Amino acid sequence: MPVAPADLEPFILELNRASGAVILPLFRADHGLEDKDKGAGFDPVTQADRGAEAAIRQLIAEHHPDHGVIGEEYGEDRPDAEWVWVLDPIDGTRAFISGLPVWTTLIGLRHHGAPVLGSIGQPYIGEVFLGTGERARLITAEGERPLQTRKGTRLSQALIATTDPHECFRGEAEQAAWRSLRDSVRLARYGCDAYAYAMVAAGKLDLVVEPGLKSWDIEAAIPVVEGAGGVVRHWDGRPIGQNGGRAVIAGDEPILAEAIAALASTSP
Amino acid sequence: MPVAPADLEPFILELNRASGAVILPLFRADHGLEDKDKGAGFDPVTQADRGAEAAIRQLIAEHHPDHGVIGEEYGEDRPDAEWVWVLDPIDGTRAFISGLPVWTTLIGLRHHGAPVLGSIGQPYIGEVFLGTGERARLITAEGERPLQTRKGTRLSQALIATTDPHECFRGEAEQAAWRSLRDSVRLARYGCDAYAYAMVAAGKLDLVVEPGLKSWDIEAAIPVVEGAGGVVRHWDGRPIGQNGGRAVIAGDEPILAEAIAALASTSP
Repeated sequence: MPVAPADLEPFILELNRASGAVILPLFRADHGLEDKDKGAGFDPVTQADRGAEAAIRQLIAEHHPDHGVIGEEYGEDRPDAEWVWVLDPIDGTRAFISGLPVWTTLIGLRHHGAPVLGSIGQPYIGEVFLGTGERARLITAEGERPLQTRKGTRLSQALIATTDPHECFRGEAEQAAWRSLRDSVRLARYGCDAYAYAMVAAGKLDLVVEPGLKSWDIEAAIPVVEGAGGVVRHWDGRPIGQNGGRAVIAGDEPILAEAIAALASTSP
Repeated sequence: MPVAPADLEPFILELNRASGAVILPLFRADHGLEDKDKGAGFDPVTQADRGAEAAIRQLIAEHHPDHGVIGEEYGEDRPDAEWVWVLDPIDGTRAFISGLPVWTTLIGLRHHGAPVLGSIGQPYIGEVFLGTGERARLITAEGERPLQTRKGTRLSQALIATTDPHECFRGEAEQAAWRSLRDSVRLARYGCDAYAYAMVAAGKLDLVVEPGLKSWDIEAAIPVVEGAGGVVRHWDGRPIGQNGGRAVIAGDEPILAEAIAALASTSP
């Protein structure tokens, strides 16, 4: 009998627990940082990130040895398998090193190349935002509640977020696109990475715009946001494929269209 | 026998619990917002803020009827009393309405006009950062641990924060002062309000700069940051008095001096 994505929900929660067990002793502790990308921006990688990805890969190898894995730290392993896990144990390393509990653990699952299950976990707070593309829910120690994006907000009233208004938007065209959008909305928040996607799923933010995502930065969030009724697209309106890129995460289609128009208004 | 500030630690924790009990059912719920300050910037006040301040004032009136109270929502009551509580139940209302768990509950206590006890609480996460000016600790459901600022970081390696790089710094001189500082450091974080002060106390951030604080935005944090070994000053190097103002929160004196110099380098 073929496996359904929902059958893997207990396993994705187990992966979240295993990852959190590695990461939490290192959160707010003194720990070694590495700079992967010396001289070309600030991109710390913590021992926690590596240890957690190793722990997750170990569990996948034990329980689902035929599944593929793509992770930020340890690369690709059978990326063309029927089922492929896409991992980023610490999305938001800058928040992490600053002690701020808005970093997240991203675990996504592809089936035949399409994202079908994903979780955005925050183990310090004790939250897992879990989605299947059709439904999404928040799981905490207190229980579960369904997630639903906010509908019908116009851009002028929107609460939006992006990771960094200065460093992420490269070149004058991207900077101008961001300023155009920011000047159109009610309130902008910064520095929350994928935690902001979870807040779109929870109906608290209306829009997140990111200029340069990798697959592991966004893929786990797609089933969560879409399961809550939202949309995840490229700045040009196309679906996000397997390579990430410039992404808009929105509560509904109308505000997505408004955001895409605002971003395009300054483009060459 | 005169009361010592430490005798009031159980009471300040009780105030935190009472405040959290009012606020948490409204966090991430749909709730009414008011705009206190129409046409002059965005300053939402939630029903949660008002309800929590009323609950805290009620407990103070019952248990310490001779104490004064100063709060953001309900003004001043015996501000010249020997003991005066300074309250902001939801510091970081923008984070709050965005669903982000970096808003805090600020409760400070003055004795003869000087801050002697304070707490920075985050009830959704379940944290209270408590300080006496001489010691500070983090209290969670798991237990307590001492707080200690990071020492010896140079400005060029510093992790810093401010609430909003666009809206808070008013006029070209403040904007230039902020850019001068930001361009001198390793990493800047935004939007964390008093949660960032707690991260200075916890040794994760080195510096926070804020241009326009009220007494209730900062006073509760002074015994926490100073109790952890840090310093809280005006941009001009003087102590913060009872009126707030432009504040620098720093892990130690050398980085405070570097920050003050960087801020002053662009001033008229």
